Amino acid sequence: MQIDLNCDMGESFGAYRIGRDAEVMPFITSANVACGFHAGDPGVMRETVRLARAHGVAVGAHPGLPDLVGFGRREMHVSPRELEDAVVYQVGALAGLAAAEGVRLQHVKAHGALYNMAVRDAALAEAIARAVAAVDRGLLLFGLPGSEILRAGERHGLVVIGEAFADRAYEPDGSLVSRRKDGAVIHDPDQVVARVRRLAKEGVVRAVDGTEVTLRAGTVCTHGDTPGAEVLVRRLREALEADGVRVAPVGGTVVSRTPRG
Amino acid sequence: MQIDLNCDMGESFGAYRIGRDAEVMPFITSANVACGFHAGDPGVMRETVRLARAHGVAVGAHPGLPDLVGFGRREMHVSPRELEDAVVYQVGALAGLAAAEGVRLQHVKAHGALYNMAVRDAALAEAIARAVAAVDRGLLLFGLPGSEILRAGERHGLVVIGEAFADRAYEPDGSLVSRRKDGAVIHDPDQVVARVRRLAKEGVVRAVDGTEVTLRAGTVCTHGDTPGAEVLVRRLREALEADGVRVAPVGGTVVSRTPRG
Amino acid sequence: MQIDLNCDMGESFGAYRIGRDAEVMPFITSANVACGFHAGDPGVMRETVRLARAHGVAVGAHPGLPDLVGFGRREMHVSPRELEDAVVYQVGALAGLAAAEGVRLQHVKAHGALYNMAVRDAALAEAIARAVAAVDRGLLLFGLPGSEILRAGERHGLVVIGEAFADRAYEPDGSLVSRRKDGAVIHDPDQVVARVRRLAKEGVVRAVDGTEVTLRAGTVCTHGDTPGAEVLVRRLREALEADGVRVAPVGGTVVSRTPRG
Amino acid sequence: MQIDLNCDMGESFGAYRIGRDAEVMPFITSANVACGFHAGDPGVMRETVRLARAHGVAVGAHPGLPDLVGFGRREMHVSPRELEDAVVYQVGALAGLAAAEGVRLQHVKAHGALYNMAVRDAALAEAIARAVAAVDRGLLLFGLPGSEILRAGERHGLVVIGEAFADRAYEPDGSLVSRRKDGAVIHDPDQVVARVRRLAKEGVVRAVDGTEVTLRAGTVCTHGDTPGAEVLVRRLREALEADGVRVAPVGGTVVSRTPRG
Repeated sequence: MQIDLNCDMGESFGAYRIGRDAEVMPFITSANVACGFHAGDPGVMRETVRLARAHGVAVGAHPGLPDLVGFGRREMHVSPRELEDAVVYQVGALAGLAAAEGVRLQHVKAHGALYNMAVRDAALAEAIARAVAAVDRGLLLFGLPGSEILRAGERHGLVVIGEAFADRAYEPDGSLVSRRKDGAVIHDPDQVVARVRRLAKEGVVRAVDGTEVTLRAGTVCTHGDTPGAEVLVRRLREALEADGVRVAPVGGTVVSRTPRG
Repeated sequence: MQIDLNCDMGESFGAYRIGRDAEVMPFITSANVACGFHAGDPGVMRETVRLARAHGVAVGAHPGLPDLVGFGRREMHVSPRELEDAVVYQVGALAGLAAAEGVRLQHVKAHGALYNMAVRDAALAEAIARAVAAVDRGLLLFGLPGSEILRAGERHGLVVIGEAFADRAYEPDGSLVSRRKDGAVIHDPDQVVARVRRLAKEGVVRAVDGTEVTLRAGTVCTHGDTPGAEVLVRRLREALEADGVRVAPVGGTVVSRTPRG
Repeated sequence: MQIDLNCDMGESFGAYRIGRDAEVMPFITSANVACGFHAGDPGVMRETVRLARAHGVAVGAHPGLPDLVGFGRREMHVSPRELEDAVVYQVGALAGLAAAEGVRLQHVKAHGALYNMAVRDAALAEAIARAVAAVDRGLLLFGLPGSEILRAGERHGLVVIGEAFADRAYEPDGSLVSRRKDGAVIHDPDQVVARVRRLAKEGVVRAVDGTEVTLRAGTVCTHGDTPGAEVLVRRLREALEADGVRVAPVGGTVVSRTPRG
Repeated sequence: MQIDLNCDMGESFGAYRIGRDAEVMPFITSANVACGFHAGDPGVMRETVRLARAHGVAVGAHPGLPDLVGFGRREMHVSPRELEDAVVYQVGALAGLAAAEGVRLQHVKAHGALYNMAVRDAALAEAIARAVAAVDRGLLLFGLPGSEILRAGERHGLVVIGEAFADRAYEPDGSLVSRRKDGAVIHDPDQVVARVRRLAKEGVVRAVDGTEVTLRAGTVCTHGDTPGAEVLVRRLREALEADGVRVAPVGGTVVSRTPRG
């Protein structure tokens, strides 16, 4: 029994701070690092890689739409070609900064509106998968189980990793309850912890109608941008480890080389 | 006798076109590709790499200051740390797009105001050299002979390449005549060709006061952004080859791998 | 009989030039000036106002989506509130630059994807109309006849101006033939001129199926971004004037005050 | 005896929050609102105007250099012409958003690196003053007493307002002690309050060497971006009012019209 806890990191920008990166990093195992399009800047990216390395946390790219003021949360009609090149650019930029710190990227996870678009739009999912494969076939691709992006990743020979959400309710078909519905987000920490424990140990989550849903999830998404976020993530990790679940980067141990330069 | 002809390429952005890339590419041997900060976008960058590969032209990164509206021509007070990370980001982004086309980067050449700042500011030159070495120690670093950036590159174990300017007048000490002085730019094509031929064959250029100056230049900067630019570059190349000078990428033959993806 | 010829102007940005503004300006009567979000920058905006003033051309704001690399042509999911504030910001910025040149804005016309979104999306149309009314109730609002934006403008007490397209084919219901269909764009200059003449004199355009469609259009959209664009616009203007049609800004004569400062 | 307390406001951007605007606004009398170049976005700008209006606080434009990632704190080599147009653009944009809320701008104060550049660079100071006068001659211009920008403002017929800094130490010549020197910033709240009281009542500040310096200051700069900033600003205001000093916008009472739209 093993699970990976991932979290969006490095979303600060210039003088602007977002997220409790330093507090949350000790408890997660994979960091999704923003790449400068929806959030992040070169200095923040590098600092985030360094912080992840210090805690043995695997580093992944978290590319987003080119929309800083909208934080990548607004859907845009990008063409597959534009998207592919934008993803390669962002992953390449982070790979460069990671290399400068002696770190090799573990994975790629799309951000915000792009994540959602890639769940259902086959052409955009294909573009992202092609981008990731073009930069490095060894990169893992994170996404919603059953989504277009995981199918696209498999077509391109990538290892794909299904992602579960610690604090989201599920429909009986394994999709997420829409945020527009009541009960979409689970706020009770005890419940969040209980659900993730069961998921890690049995691979099962209870849907809103009571159905038991089997979820193939290798990683669980946690949040680091609310006050006290680290408290929940810490509890989650401790509860899992107390249960005998190994909490570790899904791609294996992080081996860092000596930084260059 | 061998010389490299480099040219800034890929400076278009979105719907905006600048430069006669398609016309000039057949005659140069190293392309300095803009990386999205002062010019260029992911789609333009990738298209430029493809065009270079088709003509056997070596690809280099051409990082600039974060100033799109100023085209990277306005000096800014960036800190060495900010600059280092910004250069790693840009080189990494282009390296990703080049890898997607099966191309490995040959060199890095700073753009515009950054190029000039790195001639004389030791701390910024150091930051650029450290950035390049951090991404890939095999990258060549282009710069003005005798400048701080070449010294910094050598300190970091990089192979540095002195650059001569095809259409610029020189002072007796080997520096360029300031653009604020008359005669700084040589407009007569015959003279430009004659000077580059002599430089390639004898390593000598005649300064404004008639002094013969020895220049250690492995590459010559040409321009691709004026109407008919390709005519001069073509003449230059043909004249050099007629003289028995080998015109080739300074880093050796471009070997492209099969594109991935 | 009177008609206004409008054209998008001021879409250059920094070192990037787009459009044949200087060549086309003498023949149009209303300039839609980009406001820095999809194109344009403060210097270009002011220069364009000056050029318009020199030719007695009325100046209008041409606000777009915040997407410079996509030239405002990609639809984005903006909220009505975000859009309203973005339009006020852009119109205010141009109004400031125009005031600095002693010019008062005549109109507002949305750009690209925003124009299309405002044809059919009532909430976004409402946001734009509210923005325009909030800045200055004297501004005219340009839009497709029968579109949501003109309805919204009327609700806010604005004078709305229906716009016809010189080179576009029409459906029998007065809507434009989709660009995805053959024949959507009319390339024959003679036909373009003949259609606009009839529209100006009779208020009628012949649809693709031969139906005669009545169009309430006070202004006709021309293009200034193709090579030789000025030739067609000039022919159009000369043909209209030869027919006794008065070609003038829809908002009346441009009275410019002495520039301040 | 009357004094104005000004503070930078509206420096949030998209999802990023900076500053304790809601907490500080009740105690200041003039708000310097960021205009989107170094900080701020259209939504934040409008919200800030609304907040100022609710508290009877006068609204001013706070234009900066086009450097979001550097928060406008890095000097750039802009030309006077570029700067003039950039300032008109920013002031115009805020004036539009303020008009939409029925508020007329009171003043303009340059931000960060631009503020400092305009203290000593006569050509840039002239550009800013010309920009402000071009938009609206009724705008007050804030700046350091004795600086180039106040001289330029006077040449353009603007009412200029000297600004004192609540928490900065002064040299005997009335200039600020450089931040690179020890003691440049006064951290003791009691001292800050005592100094501002004396300044408001006697127009005098004690310099680092003990000299009494006469300062013609109509407004005092306070800070709103540190935790608990509102505590100091509140104390300052209460102490001044207890002394019989009237704390009010330097431009007079804020009269807001009914919002349009």
